[in-house]
Amino acid sequence: MIPLKLERDAPSPLYVQLTEQLRDAITSGVLLPGTLLPAERLLAGELGVNRSTVLHAYRVLKEEGYVDATVGRGTEILPREAWQPSMPDRFAWRAALRGAWLGEPSSLIEDMLAMNQHRDIVSFGVGLPGRDVLPVTEFRALVDGVAEREREALLAESPVEGLPRLREALVGLMAQRGVACTADETLVLSGSQQGLDLLFRRMIQPGDTVIVEAPTYFGALQLLRGLGARIVGIPVDEQGMRTDILARVLERQRPRAIYTLPTYQNPCGAVMSDARRRHLLELAWRHQVPVIEDDPYSELALDGEPPAPLKALDRHGIVVYLSTFSKILFPGLRIGWMVAPREVVLSITSIRAATDLHASTVGQNVLAAFLENERLAPHREHVRAVYRQRRACLIDALSALSGIELRWSAPEGGFYLWCRVPDRVDRRALLEYAAEQGVSFLPGWHCFPEDPGSTTMRLSFSVVDEVRITEGVTRLGRAVRKARQAPRSEPVSLQGGMPIV
Amino acid sequence: MIPLKLERDAPSPLYVQLTEQLRDAITSGVLLPGTLLPAERLLAGELGVNRSTVLHAYRVLKEEGYVDATVGRGTEILPREAWQPSMPDRFAWRAALRGAWLGEPSSLIEDMLAMNQHRDIVSFGVGLPGRDVLPVTEFRALVDGVAEREREALLAESPVEGLPRLREALVGLMAQRGVACTADETLVLSGSQQGLDLLFRRMIQPGDTVIVEAPTYFGALQLLRGLGARIVGIPVDEQGMRTDILARVLERQRPRAIYTLPTYQNPCGAVMSDARRRHLLELAWRHQVPVIEDDPYSELALDGEPPAPLKALDRHGIVVYLSTFSKILFPGLRIGWMVAPREVVLSITSIRAATDLHASTVGQNVLAAFLENERLAPHREHVRAVYRQRRACLIDALSALSGIELRWSAPEGGFYLWCRVPDRVDRRALLEYAAEQGVSFLPGWHCFPEDPGSTTMRLSFSVVDEVRITEGVTRLGRAVRKARQAPRSEPVSLQGGMPIV
Repeated sequence: MIPLKLERDAPSPLYVQLTEQLRDAITSGVLLPGTLLPAERLLAGELGVNRSTVLHAYRVLKEEGYVDATVGRGTEILPREAWQPSMPDRFAWRAALRGAWLGEPSSLIEDMLAMNQHRDIVSFGVGLPGRDVLPVTEFRALVDGVAEREREALLAESPVEGLPRLREALVGLMAQRGVACTADETLVLSGSQQGLDLLFRRMIQPGDTVIVEAPTYFGALQLLRGLGARIVGIPVDEQGMRTDILARVLERQRPRAIYTLPTYQNPCGAVMSDARRRHLLELAWRHQVPVIEDDPYSELALDGEPPAPLKALDRHGIVVYLSTFSKILFPGLRIGWMVAPREVVLSITSIRAATDLHASTVGQNVLAAFLENERLAPHREHVRAVYRQRRACLIDALSALSGIELRWSAPEGGFYLWCRVPDRVDRRALLEYAAEQGVSFLPGWHCFPEDPGSTTMRLSFSVVDEVRITEGVTRLGRAVRKARQAPRSEPVSLQGGMPIV
Repeated sequence: MIPLKLERDAPSPLYVQLTEQLRDAITSGVLLPGTLLPAERLLAGELGVNRSTVLHAYRVLKEEGYVDATVGRGTEILPREAWQPSMPDRFAWRAALRGAWLGEPSSLIEDMLAMNQHRDIVSFGVGLPGRDVLPVTEFRALVDGVAEREREALLAESPVEGLPRLREALVGLMAQRGVACTADETLVLSGSQQGLDLLFRRMIQPGDTVIVEAPTYFGALQLLRGLGARIVGIPVDEQGMRTDILARVLERQRPRAIYTLPTYQNPCGAVMSDARRRHLLELAWRHQVPVIEDDPYSELALDGEPPAPLKALDRHGIVVYLSTFSKILFPGLRIGWMVAPREVVLSITSIRAATDLHASTVGQNVLAAFLENERLAPHREHVRAVYRQRRACLIDALSALSGIELRWSAPEGGFYLWCRVPDRVDRRALLEYAAEQGVSFLPGWHCFPEDPGSTTMRLSFSVVDEVRITEGVTRLGRAVRKARQAPRSEPVSLQGGMPIV
């Protein structure tokens, strides 16, 4: 018999100790298959425990497939093949993780992955600065400077709301954008997307209505779907959100928030007109619906200067303003910010303190130094010139495509050209042939709360240099031409989706 | 008469245009108080609009206190003092931001703030590395190295799950801790607190039961309260969580998760015994309750080496492991990580993609280089030596206090000494006198799901140097002595609370 040693004072119950020791003896081969375990009463007596302890241990082992009990024969160790525990061997996480199972490939990911098979892909899909314009030399000098000045503080903690130094610099930047605020009304974020997440968490409960533009930033759609919001899309034209339609919607509905990207809209590039900006604020105030203004792109004006943000016109503190350094400077630092009434900053700070605590101290220091040294203006001029050329190159190449009726309007700023594909082009085939040709884009139909029926592409001209832009458009032309001949398939689903910035 | 110009084609309705123009004329002084506005019918005729348009505009101005209408006299502009809009002038955010109004000072913040009044405070409250042990020189060299090697990639985006380079390095670090995993099973986080937040969001809905240790990390309590969880505390003794009590609880209840800090527990420093670790896992598997293991402190062993994490014993993939670099290396970089079955990593990645996207690329590169260059072991030895001295100094100073019965046990690792104060000491008075004396601690009663009645202090010895430790304990002694004589007040509330790491 194997040496069994049960300890009454041990924290784990006797039956657990017994189960473990027997299981170990079986799996290690000390007790071989075919062996009969002692009768329960007998073993209980030997060990000086209740018979129920042994019963319990045998039952567990039976559930796990190690033994079987036959009347008249006793409890026998089964052959190794039978060791198929009745409980699965791995914990079933799917049941434990609630909400949409976003780990599953969603249609957007599928669509993006479908296009990224090609080894030598030209990516018009990604909304990021070109790597060639990232000021890495300047960054190193700034790190040296702040390390010299800040010493250990560079690596230590930051207040949740952000380093005072950066918040002061943000007040200056906001003044340049036409917004008067105090440092107390700023909040440094780990990217403006975090601000959206925290605000929506505070503002939205399942079933609440939220107004967005249609099309809009798909990352916002994903957050809102995750929270179970009812999403109402207001169409966008070249003057931005159709506030006349918004007015009619607000007469019937009571949304919790209006989410808008008024300047160089993502994905369609529109700039909301001054009249509509005023109308939007008027409506928001009249109906007492707070406005979340997302402004990642306004530094990236390519024709003239950007209009002042909605926040600059906000007399009632009804607008929360979000922006980021990820599109203009260093995406890898993940630093964005919020400007909002003090009570909003406090509320978001307290939830933020329980999430990621604060943005990287190094990143905050570097950006503060960048702003303090007045490096933003020259950098902005540089990247605007680069993107202006890329935009021209993309438009030239698209215009030169013959025999396909693509429609677009040149954006006045930002990263994106929004391009309408003739309706008779099959979406699934378009994605397939784009992948085959080695070119990718953001499928525009994922940017709507509900499938608009139309087929659109968001083409980013920021990341790709001019030679590759020309090549990419040639590939795109081939893909569209080929897809036009394919038979039409069912529209794709809009569920889920991992954001691709 | 002022020039009114209404545009039929403008997006904003005619009455809004009229209201705005009249309001501007009034507030700018073009129309002075006492002036009579034209009769509605008259103005409507002049402007060529419906009478209802004018009626509507006048009504809005009346609501806002700019005008008043008297029968027989007409609509008159009121004196400036009357301009008290019937609607509040500022948007009422409190109603728009749901959930507990965490922006309000909670009792924990009040308690901490109460103690931080003193200009020259000795802070035993903060759970962070001492600033004097942060390797800032090494950091600068590492930044230079990674900038040289990575160039623009240093500032560009990272995959949501983390840079492959860092994930590979984490596999090596986990192996040192006794855990075999693949890079696919790791997820780089913006601090381990972010991992808790994302996991809880995925796992917990209002009313769900979650098991924690009592006492436990108050940041976890705050997250769980925010999600509306039912929190069940299992007592901790010197062997860690009382798994015998856990076993009884699990027979009656079906929690969604068990949250534990098995090694150098926060706040009480306990190390869970090997027998209880096995018992805990046995219970979790039997009852199919996933375990969240929080392990921020295990590198900070002060006596001997730390035990292997629960994750090293996890045969069923039922444990999610969280750890961080914030306690051992650079708190300001905000980099932590998760080790979990692939499906958990995917699920958390997809929610994370919609929050802060990824951790700072710079921080990730620096930490990867730090690990690759095998810099962790010497740094660990250095900080352990420093903290060992500080722990000894704290214990010596506490032991030398005469005439007060404080009780504690020396922690074998981590940052904290958990100290029991005699029950007859009044809490409110203790906080007040600590503030008066210039010493702070984390009030232990905030670390329990429900007020334990007892009065405890978590004293961090990591941030304060030895001279200050001695001084701080002297002050603490004076505060305790004085508070013992104060009359007892009501126990403080446990609601809300902003985490103080």
